[in-house]
Amino acid sequence: VNGGGTTIAVDAVGGDHAPEAVVEGVARAVDADSRLEVALVGPERVVRPAAEGHVRLTAVPAEETISMDESPTQAVRAKRDSSIVVGCRLVKEGRAHGFFSAGNTGAVLAAGTLVLGRIAGVSRPAIGAVFPTPERPSVIVDIGANADCRPEHLVAFAHMGTAYAKTVLDVDSPSVGLLSIGEEPSKGSTLVVEAHELMRTRVPGFEGNVEGRDVSRGVVDVVVTDGFTGNVVLKVMEGVSATLVSQMREAMTSSPLRTAAASVLAPALRELGRRMDPDVYGGAPLLGVAGAVLIGHGSSGPDAVAAGVATSVTAVRGGLVERIAAAVETD
Amino acid sequence: VNGGGTTIAVDAVGGDHAPEAVVEGVARAVDADSRLEVALVGPERVVRPAAEGHVRLTAVPAEETISMDESPTQAVRAKRDSSIVVGCRLVKEGRAHGFFSAGNTGAVLAAGTLVLGRIAGVSRPAIGAVFPTPERPSVIVDIGANADCRPEHLVAFAHMGTAYAKTVLDVDSPSVGLLSIGEEPSKGSTLVVEAHELMRTRVPGFEGNVEGRDVSRGVVDVVVTDGFTGNVVLKVMEGVSATLVSQMREAMTSSPLRTAAASVLAPALRELGRRMDPDVYGGAPLLGVAGAVLIGHGSSGPDAVAAGVATSVTAVRGGLVERIAAAVETD
Repeated sequence: VNGGGTTIAVDAVGGDHAPEAVVEGVARAVDADSRLEVALVGPERVVRPAAEGHVRLTAVPAEETISMDESPTQAVRAKRDSSIVVGCRLVKEGRAHGFFSAGNTGAVLAAGTLVLGRIAGVSRPAIGAVFPTPERPSVIVDIGANADCRPEHLVAFAHMGTAYAKTVLDVDSPSVGLLSIGEEPSKGSTLVVEAHELMRTRVPGFEGNVEGRDVSRGVVDVVVTDGFTGNVVLKVMEGVSATLVSQMREAMTSSPLRTAAASVLAPALRELGRRMDPDVYGGAPLLGVAGAVLIGHGSSGPDAVAAGVATSVTAVRGGLVERIAAAVETD
Repeated sequence: VNGGGTTIAVDAVGGDHAPEAVVEGVARAVDADSRLEVALVGPERVVRPAAEGHVRLTAVPAEETISMDESPTQAVRAKRDSSIVVGCRLVKEGRAHGFFSAGNTGAVLAAGTLVLGRIAGVSRPAIGAVFPTPERPSVIVDIGANADCRPEHLVAFAHMGTAYAKTVLDVDSPSVGLLSIGEEPSKGSTLVVEAHELMRTRVPGFEGNVEGRDVSRGVVDVVVTDGFTGNVVLKVMEGVSATLVSQMREAMTSSPLRTAAASVLAPALRELGRRMDPDVYGGAPLLGVAGAVLIGHGSSGPDAVAAGVATSVTAVRGGLVERIAAAVETD
């Protein structure tokens, strides 16, 4: 770790477009931030040439690769020299301030938990996701680390999501909603009804239950839910957007006149598409482990990687881990 | 119940636009189907004049009304002369073949269960919802009757959804998917992993897990999930569509030239809107009770009411209740 700068370890072989997209994205991130250094982690034949000639890019060899469909915990235990395990180890040893990977989500979760350990008081690390809404982005926790939860886990998710919204989304006093199937505290599953009761007194900014239709409207900064529901919600949002956009594209090009009209609207729709693109928010934070770890989408291109690295820097400089530790301790 | 025709009891005072929208919708449904009779249930001052002069419209007085925000079970127990309770009683007594209400969903669920009773072998009635996908509609069960479920409940939801798809969506051999957070049988909550194991051998047409992003793509005819997740999913779909459409409308009218181009596309987009409008599918079926009961959206206008009544007729004529009974018995 260098003087006043920030060092982010980056998994060179994570994601469908690695290593090219990662190397290109890292170069862009380094160019955009003069106080950023990157430790590029991966097979020597990949990282050595990529770091060549860049003063703020270091090659860190890690010869093994965990593929997207490997069983996470087994792979992390077996492949001690994989880019994901080595990247986490750099953070653990203080040689990097944070880690970004667009690789196997489960493996990053497992390696982050095993190598870095949990923040004191956090029993279940969780994964957050930032998604666009008309006014400003919201964060949802958990999106898949914990398919089965107890009420107290949801309380911790609220603290971690709040810390992330403060650190990365720059919200002073984030509002928090518990995802349920009715606004009344009595509505919902047993898990949610019990969590509501706990959150009422223990979560600053808690505004009660929010419903499915509120999520995309952005009525709260932080949406709290179990990892099963959160994963389904995030993927439903992706799916509906994709289906609707492709249906509209078809409708808008169903005749030459319509195609001409659509071309007039193309810049406005592209701009909207950019505004609603979740990739600009730089990946999904692994919350509750003792280090700033972000997980990129498997399909990450150079822009998404650059955003992920930049967001990792923001998380480090804003003290994400320390904020979570403080929130959990004072709860 | 008349000779060869079908009689549907309709709640005259259910929904935000009742009684006008209901009376108008019923008139349209009756006009469109010469073998349909409707028993219009509600306060005498409303139903008597509405039925006046229509040979296939009968007024059935029920002086009490259960409002949208009343506690369902209490209201159903206390208000024996409410339109919802009386409508269910008409079906129970064989004076109507089915019941449609755009009123308080929980009250229809409670009255349907208490008055009509459950189909033998069904321990938990559920609510289904039909939603549009690019190729053809899908049905999702449960969307809110059961926030907490056991694995065997999901098996019954699959049978009931399959019967509905056969009867109302006219699918010969419906495909069934279990909503989860990964395709592998081992992925998901404990509930879902255990349900998958049961469904594998007991549900005809079972194609395994489906993920959130598959739902709107229509990869299966029947999506099975617990009532908490199903309710959230349905409302997220509504919310994302509404947000996206309003954002696009804004983008497409952000200059005079764009507004002009948008007006060229308006017919195509309206047609798409009609195709993706869930109201055309006639409401949410209450599945597992001993009678054909459909619940309309609270915001139902005349078209939605007419569609709901017509769908009730289809459910009755196609033997929905008998199909569910047979599927549960042979399981």
